[in-house]
Amino acid sequence: MVKTPEQEHPVEAFGWAARDTTGHLSPFNFSRRATGDEDVRFKVLYCGICHTDLSSIKNEWGICTYPIVPGHELVGEVTEVGSMVKKTNVGDRVGVGAVVGACHDCDNCNNDLEIYCPKMVLTYSSIYHDGTVTYGGYSDTMVANERYIVHFPDNMPLDGGAPLLCAGITMYSPLKYFGLAEPGKHIGIVGLGGLGHVGVKFAKAFGAKVTVISTSPSKKDEALKQFGADSFLVSRDHDQMQAAMGTFDGIIDTVSAVHAISPLIDLLKSHGKLIMVGAPDKPLELPVYPLLMGRKLVAGSAIGGMKETQEMIDFAAKHNITAEIEVVSMDYVNTAMKRLAKNDVRYRFVIDVGNTLAATRP
Amino acid sequence: MVKTPEQEHPVEAFGWAARDTTGHLSPFNFSRRATGDEDVRFKVLYCGICHTDLSSIKNEWGICTYPIVPGHELVGEVTEVGSMVKKTNVGDRVGVGAVVGACHDCDNCNNDLEIYCPKMVLTYSSIYHDGTVTYGGYSDTMVANERYIVHFPDNMPLDGGAPLLCAGITMYSPLKYFGLAEPGKHIGIVGLGGLGHVGVKFAKAFGAKVTVISTSPSKKDEALKQFGADSFLVSRDHDQMQAAMGTFDGIIDTVSAVHAISPLIDLLKSHGKLIMVGAPDKPLELPVYPLLMGRKLVAGSAIGGMKETQEMIDFAAKHNITAEIEVVSMDYVNTAMKRLAKNDVRYRFVIDVGNTLAATRP
Repeated sequence: MVKTPEQEHPVEAFGWAARDTTGHLSPFNFSRRATGDEDVRFKVLYCGICHTDLSSIKNEWGICTYPIVPGHELVGEVTEVGSMVKKTNVGDRVGVGAVVGACHDCDNCNNDLEIYCPKMVLTYSSIYHDGTVTYGGYSDTMVANERYIVHFPDNMPLDGGAPLLCAGITMYSPLKYFGLAEPGKHIGIVGLGGLGHVGVKFAKAFGAKVTVISTSPSKKDEALKQFGADSFLVSRDHDQMQAAMGTFDGIIDTVSAVHAISPLIDLLKSHGKLIMVGAPDKPLELPVYPLLMGRKLVAGSAIGGMKETQEMIDFAAKHNITAEIEVVSMDYVNTAMKRLAKNDVRYRFVIDVGNTLAATRP
Repeated sequence: MVKTPEQEHPVEAFGWAARDTTGHLSPFNFSRRATGDEDVRFKVLYCGICHTDLSSIKNEWGICTYPIVPGHELVGEVTEVGSMVKKTNVGDRVGVGAVVGACHDCDNCNNDLEIYCPKMVLTYSSIYHDGTVTYGGYSDTMVANERYIVHFPDNMPLDGGAPLLCAGITMYSPLKYFGLAEPGKHIGIVGLGGLGHVGVKFAKAFGAKVTVISTSPSKKDEALKQFGADSFLVSRDHDQMQAAMGTFDGIIDTVSAVHAISPLIDLLKSHGKLIMVGAPDKPLELPVYPLLMGRKLVAGSAIGGMKETQEMIDFAAKHNITAEIEVVSMDYVNTAMKRLAKNDVRYRFVIDVGNTLAATRP
């Protein structure tokens, strides 16, 4: 007999799930595994809403199975630890990002790059090692292998820090890996959304000169005054783009819609790097001659490994970097998704799971 | 009065030039500048025929002005040196590659990357600092600033070494810059032509495992037996490609026709690098999701700087690397171009300028 999500594990859990491609979220009873020897269990207090959650609940990539409990920026307080857990104690403030499992035996795992492990398990709508579906952070409780547990330093707020577990590491990791996290570099951030605005903060903290590149001038004031960007480039303004040609060491492109990257390649200095962190669902047009004549590169980067995620959170705490958030209650989530679809959020929704989820029990 | 090519400089020169987009080459009287303080003059003995020559004489990129004397893989013997020349003496065996000038003052020049200088001057069909057009190596004599003079070690033959000045450095430079010139790396070389076959030799000399990737199996034996490739992958064979997925650290793609790079990206391991050295004249389709999920990159690379070109020639001499060539006489050049257009050459034509050009004087 196939067990239901409520029956398959011993620990009761409650959250909100999408049941079909409408993406509508509603209360959901399920279960989580008992705390294994290497596991950490925590009470979820906040969970960020990532654009990936929106795509997933509508199954836009065709890879999800319902019901889906989204949420991969979840934080809370540890309630139980397994017998072999070393780095975490009950009462600690911790979080989990987009990944909860990998093989721990391949080159990528051995280099702390779990996200690139072929057997990597996502935090929700993925199949865990025990064969059961993973459920994310729009829920009251979480359990994960301690390798995937990120410690929050004392001065890092749980609500504003939660989005760093996905958005933060997604921007931090390529800046570091591609040699762009250095004073004096000129870094472009394309798109000032959930990813982009924390990218500006990290690049500034690394000492870079930061230019926000956006289709519309509407966020210029916030970019410059609130996030400390040095300049703002309207990508639809041909004269502005022309004047900025050949001046960037690196550009992180957060746009997940299909768009032209040729103008971005032209903005790079020779040996410059265009890093894609958004995933357009159709191929983009790549002009080769400009790559050759400047030894430029176009790369992709996905989130980051667990060791680097901890490093990122510690760095953010030291530099007082948090996401700009709008805290919402659990029963607001469907409205939040509609607003997110219209980019109507500055800059990240975070669900107050700890204070508002329980009241939604039917 | 505008001076003709024959009148504008004091030193008589004779070569073969294309006069229009037919690309037909014929005898041509022109002139070269006197030997300046920093210049080296040499008698041209051999000149390789690069695919770029074929594109240029037909003005396929629309950037050339006629008459065009092609040739940017030219070698010979020094006949005169300027008063400030330090590294070269009369009688030395030297060569010139694709570049004869740059600003010598920008970041790229200061880092010995003249090819990426915005004021870089190509060896032919380009405007030199004095305002005159540059003429290439299908000619009896050459003069160049000593910065662009490459010394040939005693054991490096002039004929088989000439193509290294373009084809050799084009393959050597990206292998080095992108961290692929290391023992144990698995390197793919796409296309076994003038560039590809020397790429195989360099990658093998660096200690890599080398796989040739080609649309047709016809060159398999030569790739494995003559050039020492470890394996051969027919890119049209779906099963072969599928079996090789995720196994390459880096791939150098020499193909200049429009082609699909998605299968090549799939061949890369995570963090793998696809380097384009051919320049398709239309944008290629770039799938972004595979780049993200493997932190892969697609880059371009153009020839190489002068310091690195000398390093490459010295390395080639040490490892007995030369191009596989078919030596032809000057009056065979139009036939050679027709054969090159059909890829009917193994693997590079080299014109015996020293022994056959003079006889073609009208």
